[in-house]
Amino acid sequence: MALPVRTSFRHVRRFIQKFTISRRSLSSAVRPDMKEPLLLGRVFSGIQPTGVPHLGNYLGALGNWVSLQNQYSSVLYSIVDLHSITQPQDPKLLRTNILDMVASLLACGIDPRRAVLFQQSQVSEHAELSWILGCLTSMPRLRHLPQWKVRIYNVLLQKRSRKIIKQIINNQMKSKQKNEGSVGLYTYPVLQAADILLYKSTHVPVGEDQVQHLELAQDLARIFNHRFGDLFPEPRALLSSTRKIKSLREPSAKMSKSDPQTMATVFLTDSPDDVALKIRRSVTDFTSEVTFDPENRPGVSNLVSIHAAMATISVEEAVSQATGLDTGAYKQLVTEAVVQRLTPIRLQVERLRSDPAHLEHVLAQGASRARELAAPVLEEVKQRVGFC
Amino acid sequence: MALPVRTSFRHVRRFIQKFTISRRSLSSAVRPDMKEPLLLGRVFSGIQPTGVPHLGNYLGALGNWVSLQNQYSSVLYSIVDLHSITQPQDPKLLRTNILDMVASLLACGIDPRRAVLFQQSQVSEHAELSWILGCLTSMPRLRHLPQWKVRIYNVLLQKRSRKIIKQIINNQMKSKQKNEGSVGLYTYPVLQAADILLYKSTHVPVGEDQVQHLELAQDLARIFNHRFGDLFPEPRALLSSTRKIKSLREPSAKMSKSDPQTMATVFLTDSPDDVALKIRRSVTDFTSEVTFDPENRPGVSNLVSIHAAMATISVEEAVSQATGLDTGAYKQLVTEAVVQRLTPIRLQVERLRSDPAHLEHVLAQGASRARELAAPVLEEVKQRVGFC
Repeated sequence: MALPVRTSFRHVRRFIQKFTISRRSLSSAVRPDMKEPLLLGRVFSGIQPTGVPHLGNYLGALGNWVSLQNQYSSVLYSIVDLHSITQPQDPKLLRTNILDMVASLLACGIDPRRAVLFQQSQVSEHAELSWILGCLTSMPRLRHLPQWKVRIYNVLLQKRSRKIIKQIINNQMKSKQKNEGSVGLYTYPVLQAADILLYKSTHVPVGEDQVQHLELAQDLARIFNHRFGDLFPEPRALLSSTRKIKSLREPSAKMSKSDPQTMATVFLTDSPDDVALKIRRSVTDFTSEVTFDPENRPGVSNLVSIHAAMATISVEEAVSQATGLDTGAYKQLVTEAVVQRLTPIRLQVERLRSDPAHLEHVLAQGASRARELAAPVLEEVKQRVGFC
Repeated sequence: MALPVRTSFRHVRRFIQKFTISRRSLSSAVRPDMKEPLLLGRVFSGIQPTGVPHLGNYLGALGNWVSLQNQYSSVLYSIVDLHSITQPQDPKLLRTNILDMVASLLACGIDPRRAVLFQQSQVSEHAELSWILGCLTSMPRLRHLPQWKVRIYNVLLQKRSRKIIKQIINNQMKSKQKNEGSVGLYTYPVLQAADILLYKSTHVPVGEDQVQHLELAQDLARIFNHRFGDLFPEPRALLSSTRKIKSLREPSAKMSKSDPQTMATVFLTDSPDDVALKIRRSVTDFTSEVTFDPENRPGVSNLVSIHAAMATISVEEAVSQATGLDTGAYKQLVTEAVVQRLTPIRLQVERLRSDPAHLEHVLAQGASRARELAAPVLEEVKQRVGFC
């Protein structure tokens, strides 16, 4: 039986829309009745099936996704399971994580009527185009991509402490033994380019530190067009200015799902008690007054960022609300803002999770729509290359 | 309009069957009416769409293919166009080469009723499984494969003389700058493994010098089975003992399509005049007597090999027929044997080539049958990995 997604959806969306990034996206998202014309273009983005997202994902990429689906005429969001296996996965957990991610995306406000939401491996054209683009990508071009370093880092992160890992990475980089992982781990930027180009995507949302991620896709669009005639638009970065949420235990690092310290990360489905505990244990400093000074006081400033984002107020307003409170008392205030915001999402995720058949139906429909867009593009690629 | 393939097919097959390798294959091929039980197992092999094959292909791989289709219960032959683009291709020429290869295979005796004859890129599962297997293949494992060296060699071969290339290759190997080609060129052994495992193939025909080519597929079958439960049989090499036909201009090297010396290679569609010219110009030595001594007299011995294979006689019989002839006169005898054998094939290739719609129909039917076999295997792989 399908859950009453649509009914509670509006409620959840109201929460989401409060923190959408730009004025423009806010207005088009909050008031679709205004019929503000949609921007022409096709947005593509992917997310790894890591299960239920954390606060950093929610306030970063996902908020942006919800906003973009209301701005652009064509939007595709893919759960990129082909990418996920570049790191060893437990198959049962991976399947659960895929469905949990779908549930979370829906609960956060992704509307499958507006955005094509699909699972990458269900659309064979991704792997096919990836092979063809791989034949246009030189090995040295791949070797210099920063993602390789980042991905190796994440793999190691699951097992060891940050400092040791940084040392390992540095040693690896120095000795130029960069390519000791799997072939998939090395070549995934090509698959990423295929993900984007397969839909002739024009825009790809990326964080400020991720602009380079797009460069290979842009290069490959140019290389293909040059060799086989114009086909792919060069996809452009959609920069988002969302705040980076930091680890609660080590506020110099981003909040991360794979952080070995369980207290470092708040997940969307954390119970109010868990949220309270994690925030209570969060690292601050020896000054009890609350100020916003990310450079010198990263811990407290991270709490202020979280508070402001979750309560959809400015940083200044958040600091002002903390007047007279020591960090201990302020943590309670932050906890309340987080719990209030996450509760409807958590309940919705739980409802959706209990009906995997519905989630699979959503994915099947998304894959069908994605294939409709992908098939003619791949067919054209094959013709240009000389396969048919 | 479809050509009367079947009618002239018998005629051509009679030629082919004469030189099939083993007693067993010969008997089962020549006399299917004997209803000799087929060997259980699935044979997979691929050939690059290089257009019309040459004499070396015909007496090597293709003869073996014809023989195997009559021995095994399930046989798949793929025109591996995904592999072909690991080297730059002219799209129009590639398309022509694909159809020319189909025409040649049919003319040489491949029977689409016995063997599933298909074009690799028409079966999306190859690229999909390749991605998944790539995530199980370590980069160092790939780096040590000899194919990488061989493939680079072939790429360079198209442009420069052998000696210079060998020097370049050696320098490259020494400086460990092995991976300067495209990603496809580096990772194609993984696609090769996927080609084989996708059909749960049990046997792969390889030349004696190519046994290592199978090792990665065997390794990946083991790795997958170990991690996700038994699924793939470990494919075994089917060694063939066919004679290696050498270049007519440089008899120390194999006959090759990409040989820069046009007189070095006899193609199946060469006119009798072309065959005569190439054999007349073939490199021999200053001894006029005909003997078989591959080590000391590679040129003359290559002609004896060609003569024996084309006339389906033993090497001794060929030498005996040459008694009293100098190498010049013997070349005429060899020419006659080659022309007699190739003429029906050439005529059949020409007939088939003139009807590309028929060739495309053959490929479409083959792809459909290949997909029927591949789809459930890939589905099972996806389930084991955790995608569904």
